[in-house]
Amino acid sequence: MFYTAESIEQLAEQFAQLPGIGRKTAHRLALYILKMPREEVETLAKALVNVKDKVRYCSICSNITETDPCSICSNTKRERASICVVEEPHDVIAIEKTHEFKGLYHVLGGALSPLDGIGPDDLKIKELLQRFSNTTIDEVILALNPNVEGEATTLYLSKLLKPLGMKVTRIARGLPVGSDLEFADEATLTRALEGRIAV
Amino acid sequence: MFYTAESIEQLAEQFAQLPGIGRKTAHRLALYILKMPREEVETLAKALVNVKDKVRYCSICSNITETDPCSICSNTKRERASICVVEEPHDVIAIEKTHEFKGLYHVLGGALSPLDGIGPDDLKIKELLQRFSNTTIDEVILALNPNVEGEATTLYLSKLLKPLGMKVTRIARGLPVGSDLEFADEATLTRALEGRIAV
Repeated sequence: MFYTAESIEQLAEQFAQLPGIGRKTAHRLALYILKMPREEVETLAKALVNVKDKVRYCSICSNITETDPCSICSNTKRERASICVVEEPHDVIAIEKTHEFKGLYHVLGGALSPLDGIGPDDLKIKELLQRFSNTTIDEVILALNPNVEGEATTLYLSKLLKPLGMKVTRIARGLPVGSDLEFADEATLTRALEGRIAV
Repeated sequence: MFYTAESIEQLAEQFAQLPGIGRKTAHRLALYILKMPREEVETLAKALVNVKDKVRYCSICSNITETDPCSICSNTKRERASICVVEEPHDVIAIEKTHEFKGLYHVLGGALSPLDGIGPDDLKIKELLQRFSNTTIDEVILALNPNVEGEATTLYLSKLLKPLGMKVTRIARGLPVGSDLEFADEATLTRALEGRIAV
């Protein structure tokens, strides 16, 4: 496009590569950046490079952190006897927001997906098993996504962990709070019935 | 939030300041940046600062450009006798995409809005009038947004320009192509009737 500044086009192209940002939004963002004060743009640019410079993975739980071990693993107030296994760092954030879980985490870095060539060796499963050799773990909570890959990983891990003698649980599948029973899909309703608890 | 890397939080905060990006999307983008190769992140960071460094406003039409005068104003193949007046640089892009208009542009930098404290002196109206003193303009096309501010600006400009002896036109308001007459609002339908043309 010759009818606008080239650097605007270049920035829009860069923005358009990010997930969920189409060409129109990318253009709008680039023009917004143009109107922003220079210092704010520099802060954003620095924050971008900072993420690549400072963020590393925790050597214990594989969550993202700036200090190794991470703030959760090094927090003496957390219960050290239960580990919640999740797929990605943003899953840790989601669970932390509930303020329900006081134990430690383990981030696998994905889920088993043979079609995408992701096997057990591509996930932090070895690192998870290593944690059991050092400390006594009472319960492992499997909090993986309720899709095919997550289910496969849950099954794989439960078979691997149960012989080690600890309690292995998984988070419940059922109706989301505020939803309608009428509109629930069959698979969800089946899981909700299976997972019924005494009131 | 203490349960993730601080620089991720800082970047997410920066992203959340951009228009149309909420806190959740900002977080997702920050985590995506973390997974991107370092060179790509640096390219994005450089593109951001580049926009502030290289982009200026054309001294003739006030559109954004890297060379002054801009590529449209300096293009000898464009018709120099007609000027299309728009609010913002992205309006130039929108009209250029139609390949319908071969003349020059004038970017006002906004529209009259007394409630927001934007008066005629805050827009590039003086610069527009200056262009008439140098060259003969046959037609001025007012292509402002069809909202209250745009209408007010159109009215203001037409009163200002008509005495100068040139043809002053405005782009048509009517039903958008592909829409349904049944669902059109009354204001739009009124304008469509008013603006009817012989077939």
